[in-house]
Amino acid sequence: MKPSIPKGTRDFSSTEVAKRNYIFSTIKHSFENFGFQPIETPSFENSSTLMGKYGEEGDRLIFKILNSGDYLSKVDDNILTEKNSQKLISKISEKALRYDLTVPFARYVVQHQNDITFPFKRYQIQPVWRADRPQKGRFREFYQCDADVVGSKSLWQEVEFVQLYDTVFSKLGLSGTTIKINNRKILSGIAEVIGAKDKLIDFTVALDKLDKIGKEGVVKEMLSKGITEEAIKKVDPLFDFSGTNTDKLASLEGMLQGSDEGLKGVEELRFINNSITELGLTSASLEIDVTLARGLNYYTGAIYEVSAPKGVKMGSIGGGGRYDDLTGIFGLKDVSGVGISFGLDRIYLVMEELNLFETVELPKPKVLFLNFNENESLEKVKAIRVLRENNIKSELYPDTATSNKQQKKQWKYVTNRGIEFVVTDVENDTFVLKNMINSEQTTCSLDELITKVQ
Amino acid sequence: MKPSIPKGTRDFSSTEVAKRNYIFSTIKHSFENFGFQPIETPSFENSSTLMGKYGEEGDRLIFKILNSGDYLSKVDDNILTEKNSQKLISKISEKALRYDLTVPFARYVVQHQNDITFPFKRYQIQPVWRADRPQKGRFREFYQCDADVVGSKSLWQEVEFVQLYDTVFSKLGLSGTTIKINNRKILSGIAEVIGAKDKLIDFTVALDKLDKIGKEGVVKEMLSKGITEEAIKKVDPLFDFSGTNTDKLASLEGMLQGSDEGLKGVEELRFINNSITELGLTSASLEIDVTLARGLNYYTGAIYEVSAPKGVKMGSIGGGGRYDDLTGIFGLKDVSGVGISFGLDRIYLVMEELNLFETVELPKPKVLFLNFNENESLEKVKAIRVLRENNIKSELYPDTATSNKQQKKQWKYVTNRGIEFVVTDVENDTFVLKNMINSEQTTCSLDELITKVQ
Repeated sequence: MKPSIPKGTRDFSSTEVAKRNYIFSTIKHSFENFGFQPIETPSFENSSTLMGKYGEEGDRLIFKILNSGDYLSKVDDNILTEKNSQKLISKISEKALRYDLTVPFARYVVQHQNDITFPFKRYQIQPVWRADRPQKGRFREFYQCDADVVGSKSLWQEVEFVQLYDTVFSKLGLSGTTIKINNRKILSGIAEVIGAKDKLIDFTVALDKLDKIGKEGVVKEMLSKGITEEAIKKVDPLFDFSGTNTDKLASLEGMLQGSDEGLKGVEELRFINNSITELGLTSASLEIDVTLARGLNYYTGAIYEVSAPKGVKMGSIGGGGRYDDLTGIFGLKDVSGVGISFGLDRIYLVMEELNLFETVELPKPKVLFLNFNENESLEKVKAIRVLRENNIKSELYPDTATSNKQQKKQWKYVTNRGIEFVVTDVENDTFVLKNMINSEQTTCSLDELITKVQ
Repeated sequence: MKPSIPKGTRDFSSTEVAKRNYIFSTIKHSFENFGFQPIETPSFENSSTLMGKYGEEGDRLIFKILNSGDYLSKVDDNILTEKNSQKLISKISEKALRYDLTVPFARYVVQHQNDITFPFKRYQIQPVWRADRPQKGRFREFYQCDADVVGSKSLWQEVEFVQLYDTVFSKLGLSGTTIKINNRKILSGIAEVIGAKDKLIDFTVALDKLDKIGKEGVVKEMLSKGITEEAIKKVDPLFDFSGTNTDKLASLEGMLQGSDEGLKGVEELRFINNSITELGLTSASLEIDVTLARGLNYYTGAIYEVSAPKGVKMGSIGGGGRYDDLTGIFGLKDVSGVGISFGLDRIYLVMEELNLFETVELPKPKVLFLNFNENESLEKVKAIRVLRENNIKSELYPDTATSNKQQKKQWKYVTNRGIEFVVTDVENDTFVLKNMINSEQTTCSLDELITKVQ
């Protein structure tokens, strides 16, 4: 039977690891450049830490770890005969795999609050696990790259996160991303104006289709969801919501005169937009999008979502927002947080599509020493030692070829691994070096060899 | 209720992450320098991949993941009423957390054999999980850092691994480690000579106590285990097994004349020892240790174990060896492998004890811009943008101080995070910069500021 791995999980070859590490290290470098500090939390948490934090659906998708030992011994017989899987879980499983990085972070902040200097700018790059149905770009094990600040309500953080997205994507060569931004307070304001808080999601979902089905279609859908004609009229400007961010803000300001909360949202967005205009972005653009509502019952202020450069078909490659009571679930009240996340796997796919990995150095030796003659091996290994000390990745083909076929195998190894330089022979401190790209062959000393391959 | 994490797991603060990353990146750099390529495998594997590979004890210590959904529905009622925890496991759990990196690597090699160029030099740095009883230096989640070569029987690999240990520990500043080496064939030879394969473990365990209980004590223990006086006489040189590696090899050669396998082992060790003598080591020493028997029923050739510098109380900080049939368990016969592992957590503890983390750069901003005056914020954020572009970690304290108390809080933040430079004010492109180490205060342009803090 051929071995396999669980569905929704992946093996990564060295080429894939190198490309992924390129993204990770770019993100990490920018996180630290912006003053964020790394933390790490365990892969599994106590179930009580995770359960109930992601809604019913989330609870179902959390991977539970079976207790060790005789885990059934203390289970009530009735529960077993009942055969109720859900009821039994808490009796036989006390631990669960991390589902995201936000809840463990909140737990971390509360647990270590006395050792933390606030505002606490932390980043975390670790895998998470979800028992979701796997599909293109959705896995059961995947990485999240999160940066959050807790303990500050300053809008400068919101500004900084826009800059951070722009910096990372620019460094990755992903020009032309759009950082969409909205504010929960504006959505609340709209709800207030249309007179129905509970209709807000229906409203934004319908509005989001404006491009596709036009104003008439959207209005029809809204009416069918029970939003009144009068309400729709009040927010009429949203149907012609184009123009610059400044235009949009002016339009929103007019529309939301009846809602203090809505106006506060406009003011916040205006601050962020003006600051970014003053500061400038390298390759991204900031776009106010009032249909943006991700994680609605979670965010309390800014909401971010980043879309890939135009022309690339891909969902959002990043998202985040402000949540005023991050740590309340663990008993520490009134700590505001704001943060963003980078979607590693999607960024990878977009970069692959745009051929942006060309500059990534693949993990392979720069110089291979062929092994056709046992008597030369020690001298070659001595040279390799010096090369490595000079940070030149190099290796000896380990087995001595004793036939033509075995010599061919070594040359094939050179080709398959795409090795640039090959040392064939050495005698009296003189090396025969072959450049595999231009087929040039030279005879040189070790010092010359080092210079040539560097 | 104060939140907590499962026993045997750990949160890592930014300082700890930085120190751990320093070790990881040193190891990784050397792995790649030596021509090893990274791979990564999923955190959980199909249970069938892991179960039965680590002995009964191992099977028990593997963390099992509960199936999702209505996992009890297809379980036979009898199994449930029986309340047999072990029997039920395979019915309600199909996946399990990685227990080490070797078995997943073997699975990887077999699964991807057609895409791999052999000899395959791979490294892997990932966490593993064991439901072991936690104690000092032993955790339920910990990292392994493994380098292995499969597809070559060349002893140059054995030589290279000695160099690799020496290189990594030297780079970490861990001078004075001892790389102990043995060979399974020598142990088999001893077993042959003493005429009892099944007594070999008793024999090596007793011999290992020579330092503590003297020859007399060891002989007594051996006799009590049923090893004959005659057998003990045959290996008498082992009781006076000091001197150089060359002395030891000569002594072994004499003793093992009756065993072809034993002599082959001597020859292999001699090759490794002579090569290393020719090549030289930077800070470690290579020591032949015939009591070394770790993973005896696993290794078939070289066996390695590294001990910390003398004076530091710590078990082995690395180990490994050659196994002639790594991938046989997954159906690919006759692929020889040899590899070593670095024990991250123990290396960390040793380095902490020896104060070797002093040079590690902690993740904190180099420059903090105080925020006492709202009107200066934008100009400060503009300056921060330029600093970051120059790779100078910097940040604005996000909230504007509106009281003396709040100003003090900002200064406290500077102290707590150990920040080196503080910008207090800015006016007309002129910055007031304070060096927190020597308390020097200067007024300068942005360009001058960049030069000063770099």
